[in-house]
This record gives sequence, structure tokens and C-alpha cells, in this order.
Amino acid sequence: MTDVSIQRMTAGADGFDAALRKLLAWDDSVDHQVGESVRHILHDVRTRGDAAVLELTERFDEVSASQLSDLEIPRERLEQALANLPEEERWALEQAGERIRRYHDKQQSESWQYQESDGTVLGQQVRPLDRAGLYVPGGKAAYPSSVMMNAMPARVAGVGEIIMVVPTPKGVVNELVLAAAAVGGVDRVFTIGGAQAVAALAYGTETVPPVDKIVGPGNIFVATAKREVFGTVGIDMIAGPSEILVIADGRTDPDWIAMDLFSQAEHDEQAQSILISPDADYLDRVEESIRRLLPTMERADIIATSLRDRGAFIKVADLDEAADVANRIAPEHLELSVADPESMLPAIRHAGAIFMGRYTAEALGDYCAGPNHVLPTGSTARFSSPLGVYDFQKRSSIIGFSGEGASRTGRIASVLARGEGLTAHARSAEYRIRNDEQEDSE
Amino acid sequence: MTDVSIQRMTAGADGFDAALRKLLAWDDSVDHQVGESVRHILHDVRTRGDAAVLELTERFDEVSASQLSDLEIPRERLEQALANLPEEERWALEQAGERIRRYHDKQQSESWQYQESDGTVLGQQVRPLDRAGLYVPGGKAAYPSSVMMNAMPARVAGVGEIIMVVPTPKGVVNELVLAAAAVGGVDRVFTIGGAQAVAALAYGTETVPPVDKIVGPGNIFVATAKREVFGTVGIDMIAGPSEILVIADGRTDPDWIAMDLFSQAEHDEQAQSILISPDADYLDRVEESIRRLLPTMERADIIATSLRDRGAFIKVADLDEAADVANRIAPEHLELSVADPESMLPAIRHAGAIFMGRYTAEALGDYCAGPNHVLPTGSTARFSSPLGVYDFQKRSSIIGFSGEGASRTGRIASVLARGEGLTAHARSAEYRIRNDEQEDSE
Repeated sequence: MTDVSIQRMTAGADGFDAALRKLLAWDDSVDHQVGESVRHILHDVRTRGDAAVLELTERFDEVSASQLSDLEIPRERLEQALANLPEEERWALEQAGERIRRYHDKQQSESWQYQESDGTVLGQQVRPLDRAGLYVPGGKAAYPSSVMMNAMPARVAGVGEIIMVVPTPKGVVNELVLAAAAVGGVDRVFTIGGAQAVAALAYGTETVPPVDKIVGPGNIFVATAKREVFGTVGIDMIAGPSEILVIADGRTDPDWIAMDLFSQAEHDEQAQSILISPDADYLDRVEESIRRLLPTMERADIIATSLRDRGAFIKVADLDEAADVANRIAPEHLELSVADPESMLPAIRHAGAIFMGRYTAEALGDYCAGPNHVLPTGSTARFSSPLGVYDFQKRSSIIGFSGEGASRTGRIASVLARGEGLTAHARSAEYRIRNDEQEDSE
Repeated sequence: MTDVSIQRMTAGADGFDAALRKLLAWDDSVDHQVGESVRHILHDVRTRGDAAVLELTERFDEVSASQLSDLEIPRERLEQALANLPEEERWALEQAGERIRRYHDKQQSESWQYQESDGTVLGQQVRPLDRAGLYVPGGKAAYPSSVMMNAMPARVAGVGEIIMVVPTPKGVVNELVLAAAAVGGVDRVFTIGGAQAVAALAYGTETVPPVDKIVGPGNIFVATAKREVFGTVGIDMIAGPSEILVIADGRTDPDWIAMDLFSQAEHDEQAQSILISPDADYLDRVEESIRRLLPTMERADIIATSLRDRGAFIKVADLDEAADVANRIAPEHLELSVADPESMLPAIRHAGAIFMGRYTAEALGDYCAGPNHVLPTGSTARFSSPLGVYDFQKRSSIIGFSGEGASRTGRIASVLARGEGLTAHARSAEYRIRNDEQEDSE
């Protein structure tokens, strides 16, 4: 039997604060060598375009082509992948797509304007991005759900064109990923990956059009490349390991909770699963479930390592203290496996997504609940949000002064600009200030 | 007379695309030495807290104190600075504050929820950040308007506490900056600056509480420090040089337009002022105004250098072509100095703020129009937005499945999870799938 042991902590006990900090600590510093290598690739693609991308793709993915356009997968091929899926998988993908679309539709922002009494108009115009790039990892980390979660909000936002890149090491294509691209509304797909694909999207090449924002997960080379091109294009958050925090009142079937913790731990050894309960006996029962169920899991080794290295059971005095600890953790996923989750909700200030009640398994949120599964990790829920339609739109302020408004407001600007020593600012405003005898010039 | 020459270009002419790219090119790479020095300071403050901040403040600002709490300015001192201002300045500051607050009030996002037919609830909860940090530069770049523009959206968002840092080299305090902090609703002020102040805000020290997001402009050390702490805390965009693009139909007083271009150019030598018009004679007339007005300007040398090195006059065929060029530039500030700006607006896809009509001088937006003056620079208006209330709030997804909903949706999740080889995800969902004979367990 796979051995598993999980750290126990008691909130408020001596040394708890330090132990919690240690539990949550995560070193995301980038290896110097990786940084150098990525900067070299970015420069190469920026200066040599298609030729560089082709060479790097041959070197890293063992895929060769005489021109980059040969590495584009036509839109019909995506539709074909969807049509050819087993009936049940196509149904599931389309159902999930429909639920995700419906939720994201609610995130639409509207442009607005208001008029002041002197005729001055102020407002905010919301517009979609012209073009978005979606990075999809190849190999075993190629998740069709991730394709949909990244593409769908861009589609709903009204982005003009969605360009997906996905490496196909040794030419192996993932049919589910292509089908998900069809459901998600991706416009063009190139089978390229790594830092070279990020560079192609950011700078554009003869064949790959430059995008305005790059989203989607990737390995350390991809993440580092995204950090480097930030500013030239927008990027989503750089994700750390995935985490779940379950707050249980002690009356959910312990097997359910054990499996919810596993569902996070099976992602990789660095994933983090934490269980909080005021009921110490219940913690024992969940641990018992873990011991019994673990040997039945396909990824038992990964789960055991994740739980041992990064998991924890935290005993609290009551659910109020549980909410306090949750706010300090600011988890990516928070399950409130309690009788009355609604009454706890006001106390929860920081979490990427909140799963309410015993029936709401976190796994539903990963695939088909509707909300996005791209969520802030590593306590960044303190200041950031799930990926959403708003990430694919931007705002412009609208300022339209009437002659009277410009005259009145110009006096304020004039005083403040002179206070800052910016006299061109002041004089520019003063030109529009009317003397009583002056006529409206338009 | 200060000599000035401005580059002329014609849209669509041979070599225009390359010339435009060259005009907009801006090297924002960070000096290696600056990066090293900043990382050293961050590490020092992170490990030694108050003591490190005190030493660095003494070294860089020539301000010494025996403890960091001595460098805090009490809230009453801010109110006092406001009360002691000359009547006209206090009036202008309060008027501006009122207009900024009114505009930002419209940016409030509401939480929302909807219920599906089986009782499942989905939604999005909007919450303010707990604590925000505001960096304000010292010395000549200390702009009270910037204090208000950064603090006000945080205040309107409902941020729990706003902490401002402002260096006071040799102990010199700017009364207008303190007064603006009072109007903007800043809670606490520390007279520290540079990378050490950014570090104190990001990591917290014994005296300075850690914040969740740091906003505000600063020199290369501050900007580099913000980039480095991104992830630990949120940051606003790293601003490049300020820019204005004016589209003129040729019927605005050329002196007004000259002064509008000056108002951008006077910021610093790297600021960029571009004028586009279909009327070549008008471009000549604005150039004539520039030659005549320049010698009367207090910052004539800075303006002349900015216009010569980074300014341009672009002749277009018509206003449609002007809008095309504007979209390629994606300017921070766009003035539509034309008879009918409303009819141009739909064609404008990318701009931080759009100033409509001849009366709307860009300078009004810098101080008191209402919208924020912190805007995306360097073509980043393609994918980013003015600073706003939304930058000080974050969203959490809410997912609450009914027993019936979890059962139905669990089937979708199960298929997709198994398709991705994530069996703990599948089994976690499957536990909540009801067989016909099963009872609701709650």
C-alpha cells in the first residue's frame, strides 16, 4: 500500500502562523539558464521570423516542415475532429461548452456615458481586443477543458481572431484538443510550441499574425517567455501549482472529501490540498478514507507525494476561525462542505472560486459548471480574478466638453497645472476659457 | 529663439510603415546594474524590515530617523496641509476631487448570481482589496493630481486601507501632495521612497503593513522594483513616456493645437506629440504657431527636444485614414479636434482616453475632467485600460450545485475527466451522481 502521511496543524496554537507561512511558501524564481535561453529564442524569432520558428520546432518537437504554413491546421480539421469523437465525448464537450458560454455571457461589460448640465459628456467605451493568442501545452498536459476555458471568454468578448498554438511533439496530435478548439471557437491553429510559439504570437512572423494578448498555461519556458513579452502584449497571470482548500463541518461523507483532495493532488507533486475542520474526529475519518482509497487510484504515487509534501489538515475552533484561516490562505479553490454555505459566504474575502455545499465538487468547476477554471493561485486571489470576458476587453475613457464646460473646468485645470509648474498644460486649458464677451467659435 | 523642427510624414507614402514603426519604437529594457541593485534592496528589506528601510532612506534621501514610525505623517497633518492651502488651490483640488469621484462611482461592478431550473446557483462576487499601496515620487515629479488619480479609484472601490509612500529628499515635504492625499482619502503616509519603499509595501515590515497591490508612477528603480514584486502583490502597468495624438480637421485655432502638443512635450524629452491632419496647409500653420509660441514657454528646451526627437506631423488623405493611423498607434491620449467627433468615434478601436472636439483640451483630462489620467502608454491601449475602480476589486466565482444539478452535471465532468486521464476528478464528480434509488443525503 502506498504510504501517506499528512501534516496536522491547529489554528491558533503556538507556531501556527509560522507553520502556515511555511506550508504556503512557494519558490517561483526562474532559473538563470532558462531565462537566458528564452531571451535568445525570443530574439531569434523576432529577427528571423518563420525561419527561426521552423528550426526551433524541428529541434525541440522533432517536427519538420518546409514552410510555417504547413504547420497550420485548417478550421475544417477541427470540426472534423469534433465530428469524429465518440458520441459521449462529443456530447460532454458540447454540454460543457454551452454551460461555459452561458456563464461568461453574464460577464459582458457595457459602454456607458453621462451628460452634465452644461452639455459635457463623460463615459467609458468597452471594446474587445483585435486578436488573442491561446497557448495550449502538448503531450500529457494537453487538456481540452483548458482550451475551452481560455477560448470561450475571448469568443464571448467579441475578440476579432483567436489564434491557438499547440506543440505536437513527434507529430502526435490530440484529437480531443482539436475538438475543444472547434467548440471554443478558435479561428486558426498552428502546431508550434515553447518560447518560439510565444515569440511568434507576440511579435508576429511572415505567417503567424501578431496578437494583442497571450493566455494559457505552459511549462517554465513558456511561462518565462510570457513574462518577457509582457508589455509588448498582454498576458494572463503566470499560474503556480494548483490548490484546493476544503472547509468541512464534519457531516460530508469522508470518502467524498478524500476524493476531492485527491482530485487536486493528482495534478502534480506540487499541487496543494488542505482540509480545515472544527471536528478532530472527522479529520481522522477523512485520513482513514485517504488510506483506504489511495491504493485504488491510478495516480497514487503523485497523490501521495503531493499530500505528504504540501498537504495539511488544520483543526480550528469553529467555522468562523475556518473562514479566517481561509482568508489568510486566499486559495485558488475553496470548497465550503458545510450545511449552510450561504451563511459563511460573507466572511470569505479571498478565493478564486467558491464551491458551495456538499454536492459542489471542485471537479465540476474544472469542466462544466460554467465559471472559468483559470483561477488565481498562490494567494493571488487577494488581488486578482478568474480569467473572464473582461480580460479580453479594454476600456477607453470618453471626454467631450461643451464650450461652457471647458471654460468652467479649465479654471480648475489652470490652477492645478500652475501648482505643478506645468504651464503648457495651464495655457492649453486657458485658451478654452471664455471671457464674457467671447463667442462660441464653432 | 529656440530652434524646433518636426518630422513630416505622409500616410501611405513609400516607407511610411517603417517610418511609423521607428517613430513609435521605445526601448524599455532595464539596465542590468539597476536590476541587480533593486534585487539587492528588495532582499535586504524582506529580511531586515524596518532597519533596512531606515538605512536606505538615510543613504538615498539623506533623511534619518531612529525608528520607522517617526517617518509616518499623521492623517491630521494631511488635513492641515489642505486647510492651509491658498483658497484658490484648495478650491481647485476639491473641485477636481469631486469630479473624479463622480466619474469613478460609475465604474462600480456589482456582484451577480443566477439560478438554474434545478436549483443550481452560479455567480460572481466582487470584493475590494484589503489594502492598497500608492507610490508617489518625490522632488519635482511630485504631482498632487497623480495622488488623487491613484487614490480615488481605490477609495471608491472600497479598499480597506490606502497606504501612501513618498520620498522627501533632505526632508522637503510637498504641501500640495499632502493636501491631495487628504482629498483622495489616503489613510496612512510614510515618507520613504525608491525600491525600499516598494519592498516595504510588498513584504511588509514591523511598521509598514503589507499591501495587496502597488500603484503609482516612479523612476527606473521604482518601476523595476514593481516588476520584481509582481506576483507577491498586484501592480498597475509600468508606464512609458506620455504621448498625445491629435487628429485635426484643420479648423481649430492652430495656437490651441500647438499648446496641446506642448502640454505633452513639456513632461520630458521622451514624451511624444503627434499631429495628424488631411490639411497640409494647416500643418504649416500649426508649425508656425509652434515657432511663435515656443520662446514664450517656461520649459522651451524640453519641449523643443521632445518635438524634434519624438514628435511628428502626419498628412493623411482624409479622416478615415486618420482613424486607421490612430488605431495603429493606439495612443495614450487621442484628441479628435474635428467638427463632428461623434461620427469618428466608432472607427477608433484603440486609445487610452479620447478627447472629443475642439474644446476638450487633453490637459483637462490630466486634472479634473473626471476620468483617470493613469492611462496605457506605448501602444498598450490595444489590450489595457485606464486605471479604474476595477483595478482595486477582484472577483470570486460562486458555484452552488443542487443535488439534482450535481448529479446531472457530474456526468459531463466524469466523461471529460476520464478523457483527460484524471480519474480522481472523475470519481469526485461521480460520488455526487445519484442512482434512481438514492436519497438526498442532506
